[in-house]
Amino acid sequence: MNKVRIKKSVIWLCLLLFVSLKLAAQQQGLQTSKELFSPDKVLNLSVQLNDGSLYYSLKYKGKIVIGLSRLGLKADEASLTGNFEVADMQCSSHDDTWHPVWGEYATVRDHYNELLVALRQSGSGHSLNIRFRLYNDGLGLRYELPVQNSLNYLTINDELTEFALTGDHKAFCIPGDYDTNEFAYTTAPLSMIASDMEKKISKKPYETKAEGGLTVQTPLMMKTSDGIYLNIHEAALVNFGAMLLNVDDRKFMLSAHLTPDKLGKKGYLQLPFSSPWRTIIVSDDARNILASQLILNLNDPCTYTDTSWIKPMKFVGVWWEMFTGGGKTWAYSDNYKAKPGVTDYTQLKPNGRHAANTAHVKEYIDFAAENGIQGVLVEGWNEGWEDWASYRKDRQFLFNKPYPDFDVEELQRYAASKGVQIIMHHETSANAADYERQLDEAFSHMQDHGYHAVKTGYVGYIIPRSEYHSSQWMVNHYIHVARRAADFKIMVDSHEAVRPTGLCRTYPNWLAQESARGGEFESMGGNDPDHTCILPFTRLKGGPMDYTPGIFQTRLDYYKGDKPNERVHTTLVKQLALYVTMPSPIQMAADLPANYKRFPDAFQFIKDVAVDWADSWYLEAEPGDYITVARQAKGKQEWFIGGITDENSRTATIPLSFLPPGGKYVATIYADGKDADWDTHPQSYTVRRMIVTSKNILKPYLAPGGGVAISLREATEQDLRDLKRLK
Amino acid sequence: MNKVRIKKSVIWLCLLLFVSLKLAAQQQGLQTSKELFSPDKVLNLSVQLNDGSLYYSLKYKGKIVIGLSRLGLKADEASLTGNFEVADMQCSSHDDTWHPVWGEYATVRDHYNELLVALRQSGSGHSLNIRFRLYNDGLGLRYELPVQNSLNYLTINDELTEFALTGDHKAFCIPGDYDTNEFAYTTAPLSMIASDMEKKISKKPYETKAEGGLTVQTPLMMKTSDGIYLNIHEAALVNFGAMLLNVDDRKFMLSAHLTPDKLGKKGYLQLPFSSPWRTIIVSDDARNILASQLILNLNDPCTYTDTSWIKPMKFVGVWWEMFTGGGKTWAYSDNYKAKPGVTDYTQLKPNGRHAANTAHVKEYIDFAAENGIQGVLVEGWNEGWEDWASYRKDRQFLFNKPYPDFDVEELQRYAASKGVQIIMHHETSANAADYERQLDEAFSHMQDHGYHAVKTGYVGYIIPRSEYHSSQWMVNHYIHVARRAADFKIMVDSHEAVRPTGLCRTYPNWLAQESARGGEFESMGGNDPDHTCILPFTRLKGGPMDYTPGIFQTRLDYYKGDKPNERVHTTLVKQLALYVTMPSPIQMAADLPANYKRFPDAFQFIKDVAVDWADSWYLEAEPGDYITVARQAKGKQEWFIGGITDENSRTATIPLSFLPPGGKYVATIYADGKDADWDTHPQSYTVRRMIVTSKNILKPYLAPGGGVAISLREATEQDLRDLKRLK
Repeated sequence: MNKVRIKKSVIWLCLLLFVSLKLAAQQQGLQTSKELFSPDKVLNLSVQLNDGSLYYSLKYKGKIVIGLSRLGLKADEASLTGNFEVADMQCSSHDDTWHPVWGEYATVRDHYNELLVALRQSGSGHSLNIRFRLYNDGLGLRYELPVQNSLNYLTINDELTEFALTGDHKAFCIPGDYDTNEFAYTTAPLSMIASDMEKKISKKPYETKAEGGLTVQTPLMMKTSDGIYLNIHEAALVNFGAMLLNVDDRKFMLSAHLTPDKLGKKGYLQLPFSSPWRTIIVSDDARNILASQLILNLNDPCTYTDTSWIKPMKFVGVWWEMFTGGGKTWAYSDNYKAKPGVTDYTQLKPNGRHAANTAHVKEYIDFAAENGIQGVLVEGWNEGWEDWASYRKDRQFLFNKPYPDFDVEELQRYAASKGVQIIMHHETSANAADYERQLDEAFSHMQDHGYHAVKTGYVGYIIPRSEYHSSQWMVNHYIHVARRAADFKIMVDSHEAVRPTGLCRTYPNWLAQESARGGEFESMGGNDPDHTCILPFTRLKGGPMDYTPGIFQTRLDYYKGDKPNERVHTTLVKQLALYVTMPSPIQMAADLPANYKRFPDAFQFIKDVAVDWADSWYLEAEPGDYITVARQAKGKQEWFIGGITDENSRTATIPLSFLPPGGKYVATIYADGKDADWDTHPQSYTVRRMIVTSKNILKPYLAPGGGVAISLREATEQDLRDLKRLK
Repeated sequence: MNKVRIKKSVIWLCLLLFVSLKLAAQQQGLQTSKELFSPDKVLNLSVQLNDGSLYYSLKYKGKIVIGLSRLGLKADEASLTGNFEVADMQCSSHDDTWHPVWGEYATVRDHYNELLVALRQSGSGHSLNIRFRLYNDGLGLRYELPVQNSLNYLTINDELTEFALTGDHKAFCIPGDYDTNEFAYTTAPLSMIASDMEKKISKKPYETKAEGGLTVQTPLMMKTSDGIYLNIHEAALVNFGAMLLNVDDRKFMLSAHLTPDKLGKKGYLQLPFSSPWRTIIVSDDARNILASQLILNLNDPCTYTDTSWIKPMKFVGVWWEMFTGGGKTWAYSDNYKAKPGVTDYTQLKPNGRHAANTAHVKEYIDFAAENGIQGVLVEGWNEGWEDWASYRKDRQFLFNKPYPDFDVEELQRYAASKGVQIIMHHETSANAADYERQLDEAFSHMQDHGYHAVKTGYVGYIIPRSEYHSSQWMVNHYIHVARRAADFKIMVDSHEAVRPTGLCRTYPNWLAQESARGGEFESMGGNDPDHTCILPFTRLKGGPMDYTPGIFQTRLDYYKGDKPNERVHTTLVKQLALYVTMPSPIQMAADLPANYKRFPDAFQFIKDVAVDWADSWYLEAEPGDYITVARQAKGKQEWFIGGITDENSRTATIPLSFLPPGGKYVATIYADGKDADWDTHPQSYTVRRMIVTSKNILKPYLAPGGGVAISLREATEQDLRDLKRLK
């Protein structure tokens, strides 16, 4: 359906509604309900005022997917939940495209029909607007509080927003927590998740279970018994507590649960105010959930005029060796009472296991330069790691003071001479207050020493002590850091921050976040083989994740036999595939250079793979089971395919129809070996090269916990001579 | 008694104690008590271990002034209150002098005997040291937690420190509050203060009554029935909640009440840690309480190597006209929904009453230049005043964005051409978090525009929302601001901050604070005539106060008749005397230039009076009744005397024996008129000049609510010819 037709049909629809509104208004004084269709008419939103409260419901292909669900906000100053009359309803249509600075698609279409319901509260006279945007792939709705004489400030204490489910859907979920998202996923019908949610939480430090009854976090992925996929999250989380979901696991009613501060308040606001968007992505094809750009579309456009300095990249780093065994440390010494800015670190006895030393970092710089990798992350370079994980310290780290064995100037010179940039690390120990105190000096220090990107960390309980990782003040903190970083032309990769909601569109120097259980957990209990088959349906709907893929040495007892129970829960090839299935403009090659040198043919994929894309094609997908996706590198005639599976082996089906027709291409196929298995033979793989065209369909075998990774480029004459053609 | 003798006697005493300690230790295994004398032997400290807890008591001239009082700290991690054994007791002596950057005395003697009691807790093995410093004018004691293997962190939840009073002393006190000190004083026996404390609190916004029973704030001034004066406060409040006092008004037991954060915690600490000093100043002569430098002595020396840029000064300012009537405003417009950084202020309709406009500020610059006044404070220059007093905003002010009618560059040029500096104003609306966020940019903006001093303000409830004005995090915030300001060579005058504890010695660019009910309250209900006869005994023991004296137009209905019940509760002359009785290195001439032009002969005293002193002589003093003090200007042969009284008239007795003998001096005496009275004839005064010598004794009359101000300089030949000599 083309643009013009859609616009016409929406105008027609609106006219019809306007007429019926007029009629209704003439009869009853006020219109009390309205229907809105998505541009492709597949989704159908119904909005109605019942007894003074506004409700909505949503149909997909004629079936109800969200039943009658109430809307409203509660504040100390005003209860915006009932006694409403509809003052106005306006519908409109929008169809536009925009070009992200980086992402899965070079062009994104922003195409929706909109309904703005203006409510007025009897008695108080307060105005509350609710804006609905209905896309072909889902719904966004938000609360808007316009400037009004009867209200200036609000102290939010609850949000009513309901999501009435139609049954006991299969859910892919993690427990509701105000401080962390680093949980393994539970896959179960909603009626069965409670005990798992209870079990999963409160095992680790730095968790704070959400108050009240059963809660889960968003993005929440679900599948109905009749095969409809639903994803509930939020977009553009600014100046508000992050939304969890209360779960009524008998009535299958979800409702918003805003992260409070420790005084119990969920938002301190001044009008005008727009809430984050509450989003529901819907499809009967799981691939559409992955392809959906709804959350980015609901975020504001980029606020920066110059984005030329924002450059996607791959990086290696002084990092994984602190996880793998052998006792390499972030800390310079073993004096656990050393205090940054107080202790004279030059007088401390070095422990001899400090990884971030000048000579060792140079080895990483050399390795990056040799392999065309742009960045080297260095963790443990600065004062404070001896004793950092305490909420009871006033200062955990200095962000401009290197350890005695880390020569900032020399490394700046050396990295520049090799064309490599060092990535700064700012672990804050969750003392966001002290980070802000040091922020300008920290960024100046970076600017003065040639750093263009920073990995931030928030391990621990938050200071200011009124806050959680996901409460309003912290939500604003992360944004402040990203915006302030932009003033210094610095890119940000934040760890342990509130899970993302598409703000990377608005602040594209905010390249990635962790905000989920990442690759590091393979050395701390492990990630289930289906974990990365779920993340793209959940965590990644908010934005890229710095998952740290690329671990080739999957058995961690390899090092000194000191991690006999630790292993990566994938095959080696699946680690390659993750570069494509977990798109991010900043991707780590997380393993040690020595391991890459052991498997140079496999490492070639990591060297080649792009981190910014012209286009993407989701070929196969089922949450928790498998994902196959092809992408074209931005500005290049290069394509990359990643396919992954959970603990079950499978054969992927990969039509190459996304390739320009007529051309001949070299496909390099990195496949699991016949005996490959994440547990028993993770490093069994093959690399084959052959000539393909857009008419070929590949059918690679994926081992249990395995994957497939394929790179494609235009074939040269030489290739055509040397390589076989796939039949 | 000279230094050498004191040292010898202390050494002798210590030897004796050491011997008896040894004997006791031999007999019982441990020494359990000790006595320590002040250098002049007037004070006698007794320390003893009873049932595993440490107690102290204090005698003055042989009389108990503090009875047996328990010591100890409680934390979540360790209860450091009992089960103690004395591991060691060490005594030492100290006699030294130091030179403050500015102050009441060019040289301060730091002379004390010290006892360090090292306690070890049975079972836990925890170490707690308690250090006592006994001066001739009082006692300081503090808790010290050395580095120890059994303990690294503490979360303080209580401090036990008791002050067992010996009776129902007359107290000069304000109610215990976590957020403000801006109360009128209650003068009553301790047994009678409860209802007044209850009445005084919770009338104003921004107050938070201390939890629990009856509490008062420090400095607490008391007088015993037998004429001994006691002042309890703290010194060097760093990284701890401010101390209030629980009052048992039957047993007359006081105990420490630390300001908690809103989670109820009173300190998050890492060892090693030293608590603030708990101070007791004692004398039977009230003048000694005023003269005491004990609190400064207990603070660390200045941490800055270069202090040449720290320059005491007087200033006028765009300020009082916003209090006096006529509707002058801080705000540029009346749009109460304007948001700094969001609203385009150039498009707002100016309200026509905005005081901080370029032309008007130039008038102040002219007036300052003409009268040798160094500074002009400008309040209301920056975006945000339209709507600033809300805890529910994320940003109240911008600190680098002037209003459209305030031309920063032009005023910088104009002020420099007149040799005057503009004093910056940073009202934070108590959003300390956002102030820190903007701090470096705010100070850079100051530096770029020729500002060398800032008045900070913290009106409202604190953000971070876990904090009170006097809780640990905020205590550290104020220090951070002062220290960061020093990096930019900026002096600080903080308002609504935690009351001071002598930290101006350590950070001498922290010139002054408000932290009490200042002169502005004369336009908001008034200050009782005895208020300024109490403040030097209470609030000022911590450091200088920016009281904003010098209000000549004492009837506020003068302006437009719109403040018929508002008047300054002093005579005009008492306003002059305050410049001497309320010493501060930054003193405002707070009234409007027009009023100073109406009384040029009286204004001459403000033009002449010094703000930094070589020496001071307290001549008469009784808390709440009267104070007479003479001071010599630093580096000059100029002396200034201030005498004030409460609501009762009196005749002061002022021997001029502090003047160098043999010389002849011109005394300019600013005295209350015969019919002067704060209420009926506040502006009745005389100015007389005469020749005096060190042998003269002046006996000026002070009217009810009145004062006397005298300037003295060496007489010239001309003076000797023109002026009469006092007999």
